[in-house]
Amino acid sequence: MSYTLPEFLAHAIAMEQEAADRYLELADMMEAHRNDAVQSVFRDMSRFSEMHRDSIRARAEGIELPKLRSWQYRWRTPPEVGGEEGFDYLLEPFHALKYARGNEVRSMKYYREVAKEAQDPDIKRLAAEFAEEEREHVLALDEWLAKTPRPSTTFAEDAESFEPV
Amino acid sequence: MSYTLPEFLAHAIAMEQEAADRYLELADMMEAHRNDAVQSVFRDMSRFSEMHRDSIRARAEGIELPKLRSWQYRWRTPPEVGGEEGFDYLLEPFHALKYARGNEVRSMKYYREVAKEAQDPDIKRLAAEFAEEEREHVLALDEWLAKTPRPSTTFAEDAESFEPV
Repeated sequence: MSYTLPEFLAHAIAMEQEAADRYLELADMMEAHRNDAVQSVFRDMSRFSEMHRDSIRARAEGIELPKLRSWQYRWRTPPEVGGEEGFDYLLEPFHALKYARGNEVRSMKYYREVAKEAQDPDIKRLAAEFAEEEREHVLALDEWLAKTPRPSTTFAEDAESFEPV
Repeated sequence: MSYTLPEFLAHAIAMEQEAADRYLELADMMEAHRNDAVQSVFRDMSRFSEMHRDSIRARAEGIELPKLRSWQYRWRTPPEVGGEEGFDYLLEPFHALKYARGNEVRSMKYYREVAKEAQDPDIKRLAAEFAEEEREHVLALDEWLAKTPRPSTTFAEDAESFEPV
């Protein structure tokens, strides 16, 4: 994972766009649950992701960025989605927050790894900065998770998904 | 999974669009491997998916379709993508074909399930027809898999991913 600056910026922009899109979907889903508090968390996070995307785009102006493949930046699908045949899904607020958290952790680790491996000091600095932003998202989601009722004991016992940041 | 006709059509259109996009990505990746044969398989499959999408769109004309969430139609990410930190990926032709097969099987099962559950005879007939198309894609990919060298014994022994259709 040794990136040039354009490669790194392309990943960061695509990841922010992806996060913005997914947060909007989650917000709509919380609307269906009539959970206004969690809905507005997700709308805020969507807006933050868009702002971050725009600021990275501004920085990338005049640089030709490579085209990425979808799986290089996409969020994971929610773990409970489907067996093979089912695509229908309605996430509980708790699951939605946990799902978002999993993806933020993944992004954070990605940026940390880039910061560690990068030779270019610009990339090193930017990646460390972005990792810190993702860490703040994880912490914000943790606060919301603490306030949100767990839908089942089984789920609450799923310790793995709460690894500390 | 009891759909109205608009819901069903929205899924089918989104799934075909998704397949078309992913097949183009896979084709580009095969270009990087300089594997022209498998590249053109994927370009053909992308075109077929687009044609199928357009024919479903034509059928849906004048019907207002619901907006779907990404995970209701998305392809799975390739199983080998990432640990937590890595988004970089270069699929071998064999892996790419197997990945596509997994997603086609998933779509086929989805349509079969809809065909089984549907009350509406239009949905029942369309879903059965679409399931049959997906089955043909799986069989086509199987033929290509049979011609494509396996990158490792471990992978070749992965029987699960070759469940018969």
